[in-house]
Amino acid sequence: MNHRLIDVALGNSPADLVIKGGKLVNVITKEIYDTDIAVADGKIAAVGYIQEGAIGPDTKIVDAKGKYMTPGFIDAHIHFESSMLTMTEFSKMAIKHGTTGIASDLMEIAIVAGREGIEAIFDEVKDLPVKLHYPVPAFMSEEGGLQTIGAALYIEMVEELISYPQAVGLAEVLYPPILGHSPASERMLEAAAKNGKTAEGHAPALFAEKLNAYITTGIRSDHESTSAEEALDKLRRGLRVLIREGCAAADLEALLPMLTEHKVDSRHCAMVSDDIDMLHMHEKGHLDHKVRMAVNGGVDPIEAIQMVTINPAESLKIDDRCGIIAPGREADIVFLNDLATCDVDTVISSGKVVVEGGQVVVALEKKDYAPCLLNTVKLDHEITADELAVKVDPSAATAKVRVIGANATSLLTDDLEADLEVKDGIVQADVERDILNIACVERYGKGGSIGRSFIKGFGISKGAIATSMGHDHHNITVVGSNGEDMATAVNRIQELQGGLVITENGKVKYELPLPICGLVSDKDGVECAAILKQMQEDLSAKGCQMQSPFMTLAFITLIFIPMYGITDKGLVDVLQGKLVDPVISCK
Amino acid sequence: MNHRLIDVALGNSPADLVIKGGKLVNVITKEIYDTDIAVADGKIAAVGYIQEGAIGPDTKIVDAKGKYMTPGFIDAHIHFESSMLTMTEFSKMAIKHGTTGIASDLMEIAIVAGREGIEAIFDEVKDLPVKLHYPVPAFMSEEGGLQTIGAALYIEMVEELISYPQAVGLAEVLYPPILGHSPASERMLEAAAKNGKTAEGHAPALFAEKLNAYITTGIRSDHESTSAEEALDKLRRGLRVLIREGCAAADLEALLPMLTEHKVDSRHCAMVSDDIDMLHMHEKGHLDHKVRMAVNGGVDPIEAIQMVTINPAESLKIDDRCGIIAPGREADIVFLNDLATCDVDTVISSGKVVVEGGQVVVALEKKDYAPCLLNTVKLDHEITADELAVKVDPSAATAKVRVIGANATSLLTDDLEADLEVKDGIVQADVERDILNIACVERYGKGGSIGRSFIKGFGISKGAIATSMGHDHHNITVVGSNGEDMATAVNRIQELQGGLVITENGKVKYELPLPICGLVSDKDGVECAAILKQMQEDLSAKGCQMQSPFMTLAFITLIFIPMYGITDKGLVDVLQGKLVDPVISCK
Repeated sequence: MNHRLIDVALGNSPADLVIKGGKLVNVITKEIYDTDIAVADGKIAAVGYIQEGAIGPDTKIVDAKGKYMTPGFIDAHIHFESSMLTMTEFSKMAIKHGTTGIASDLMEIAIVAGREGIEAIFDEVKDLPVKLHYPVPAFMSEEGGLQTIGAALYIEMVEELISYPQAVGLAEVLYPPILGHSPASERMLEAAAKNGKTAEGHAPALFAEKLNAYITTGIRSDHESTSAEEALDKLRRGLRVLIREGCAAADLEALLPMLTEHKVDSRHCAMVSDDIDMLHMHEKGHLDHKVRMAVNGGVDPIEAIQMVTINPAESLKIDDRCGIIAPGREADIVFLNDLATCDVDTVISSGKVVVEGGQVVVALEKKDYAPCLLNTVKLDHEITADELAVKVDPSAATAKVRVIGANATSLLTDDLEADLEVKDGIVQADVERDILNIACVERYGKGGSIGRSFIKGFGISKGAIATSMGHDHHNITVVGSNGEDMATAVNRIQELQGGLVITENGKVKYELPLPICGLVSDKDGVECAAILKQMQEDLSAKGCQMQSPFMTLAFITLIFIPMYGITDKGLVDVLQGKLVDPVISCK
Repeated sequence: MNHRLIDVALGNSPADLVIKGGKLVNVITKEIYDTDIAVADGKIAAVGYIQEGAIGPDTKIVDAKGKYMTPGFIDAHIHFESSMLTMTEFSKMAIKHGTTGIASDLMEIAIVAGREGIEAIFDEVKDLPVKLHYPVPAFMSEEGGLQTIGAALYIEMVEELISYPQAVGLAEVLYPPILGHSPASERMLEAAAKNGKTAEGHAPALFAEKLNAYITTGIRSDHESTSAEEALDKLRRGLRVLIREGCAAADLEALLPMLTEHKVDSRHCAMVSDDIDMLHMHEKGHLDHKVRMAVNGGVDPIEAIQMVTINPAESLKIDDRCGIIAPGREADIVFLNDLATCDVDTVISSGKVVVEGGQVVVALEKKDYAPCLLNTVKLDHEITADELAVKVDPSAATAKVRVIGANATSLLTDDLEADLEVKDGIVQADVERDILNIACVERYGKGGSIGRSFIKGFGISKGAIATSMGHDHHNITVVGSNGEDMATAVNRIQELQGGLVITENGKVKYELPLPICGLVSDKDGVECAAILKQMQEDLSAKGCQMQSPFMTLAFITLIFIPMYGITDKGLVDVLQGKLVDPVISCK
């Protein structure tokens, strides 16, 4: 109970800011009408007619004439680290697109830098215009030896973190442990329920009886649907559907028929990013881009706005705080020049005007990074081409191998096979057929294990690409047509302390350093976007048809989405939950 | 995490009950389609195709062919005591109409029997098919000497009660203390927020700046709107609107244009009773009656069902538990023969079939009542006609008096005035003009104070009526054309230890004993309804045009709804918040 809000509402005290003349997009009633808004202490004190006494000599008046006013946009599921920017730079970029809140579990940072890393980000976000609603990662471990990570998150830590005021719930509760009656999952779910917080799901391609079983435990949402049928099945069974439109997982178009053809009530639907890089943000935007896509796809504009405001707020159980322009809520308000094109003009965050005419008008200072976030890439020797190769008996002429089938717009991979030539005991890539080598090098100074296999789908005719971002272990992953370029790329990442690298003819051709945890740049977002664009154009010229090859590569490493994942321990068969030999047979 | 639910969903363990062949009314997607449902441990384990392994030799199969299946109905704001039935009898009556959950603050019981009374009801409801979602009363006091009550609820008790698992939030947070920066209100709101629970509102005729100020504190809902404009104003500003259709406060028809003409999104609207007596339930029903009214008024049937299922569940933040037919939720399921007429055939509560063919098929045993609930009417002497009279200087010939203007369908009262004849210093009622005496007699053995005034609107040409139910103090209130009949009625209530009484010619003509706290009968609901009907018919024959005169009388005593309330301390001017003399002047 903020006494000043009451006084401002009653006209007994002047507001900090009064917005006049705008058209309110009411996401509760689905109406649009003229209203004024008074703000004090960063919160909305009054809507409608503003009392004369609420306007004093120091009250800032903002003219919203001709603008549509919506609540600040909320991304209910995004990993900010995938932008490859710090939270400060991410905010600078996202706020221009109307984003005032994100649910981000900081899992990538935590995998590398642990609990200390999480606290460092909590410090960084304190005064940012994009609020962090923190879902606590529901899993973060070496997964029974399937991968090596920098730091694990133990159940006791989850139980403590979820009681934090900024914690909104559990993030990405996996289904296999649930279906297997895991005591750890049980404890985490109990901690969430006890704190009145949500348990967000992660259920790719989960249907029928397994889906039912998963939902019985109180999971509230899922963001992994890749077809309208899958999404509708989940929605009908009580899961809130987070429609994902990311760089490497772009599901929005596929899911829209749920709304436009099946015409279901969208109250339990929201639009989210999961993973977008700074180039996507720079060129397309953030949630505004998804609103445009939905409207172009036939969704009513107010309904589309609901899916990035009130719906995500209700899904995260934070609608008492945000997602609505109403008294008592955070004064997070977006002015649009036009509703259907979601053209952001002004953004007010916690009562401060931070964007005007589409440009950020406040200084968002670069902060010092905590030591725990730096110097996290620890290879103990220079990697050689030989170490990255798949080896078999030298007498073999050919080998039948397992090949990861990468997908340009989905995180799902195919389990392919191929017959490859063997030379001197080394199984050869086949660039003609787009079957390349892939390797994953442990980078935490924990033994230096290397996983090896083959991959199809990147289409790179020469050279190699490597990244130190690879979910959910963030070891160094490299794909290439030859061992020399692969080794050069990996060693360059060691020198950069993390980054994206393209090599060709034994030399580094392009690089984007990511020195913070090996995940995030210390540079400006627009500058990074320009480099990433160059890199993508280079790969495209070499035959890669992926929209975001580095983002796709960062998910090839994930051992929770079928069919294959690769780690420093080797090739993982996701459905079996175990390592499999990349080589099936030789002859 | 219930392991058995997971096993049943997966088909690894037999369900307790499987429902086959029904048409699911999906309140999330607003679709209707065929589905089967499996139930275990009182909860829904699976929807859709039920695995063969989930059907064992002991699994009860329920045939729902041709029926519409909806979630059990939830009344988000009702005082069960107004039914004048015990929770057991209330359940017996309400369950036939599809009700499986109510939010009832037990405030009437608590005012009479205190904390001990609340605990007695918690004990009673444990195995009932109608679940109690308990909002903790946000106020319960002698209100600065404006009334005498049996027991007060202190802030420390509120803070403790709200942490109970059955507590869903605060009930009826009043606005005057909020606007006055009350520290007690602040503490209560903080306790609710800290526990992640709701703060339900009570804002009759609150508009504009005061409404804004009130909502800044995080109040979530209001049930006091009496016009579509008022309701729309609240809805737009972020309050969830509980559309009330009670005996004495029937607002549904007035509020419907908000949905049928303004066509706003109804996701934040629910339909509630506030106060209905057992006769209303017997003749009209409960939430099913409101669904019928809404559909007749032009609301889409599924939308009407949403307003008694998912919407109230989300409003109370209990949608993880109920309000939806989905895995993990309580197996509270209603079968309707027809959607538009909301004709209840079968009710399953916590997985047990409790109603079949519209009839209760389980025994709901009468329970022993805790001693604290009995013998609560404590007049220390027989009341005389003289004690109930309004007296002035014996030399006066006429008196100008304040008259409470009672309203048949609203709790709002008018502040009328009248000139009345004075005989021997006693101001005379004027039956011709329907200006009757009203008095309120303290009944807790705490001094026996008596408040007196006049009232218009009851239209009783002869005799008197009295009741020991009168919000929010529950002293004995009596209205009559003459002092003898009034005194006889009050004294009969003492003998009955509570009840409703009609007297005529100095004798008791009808009576309905309410020995539990002076509020609730120990008899069967249908039996009580027959008596109440007789009583209402008698009053009607005498000229009373009210639908529920006893219910209306029970709110004339309330000092929180403008303009007037009467207590044992006297006539209260609600807007001024103080006692006023019923006599303005004499001559």
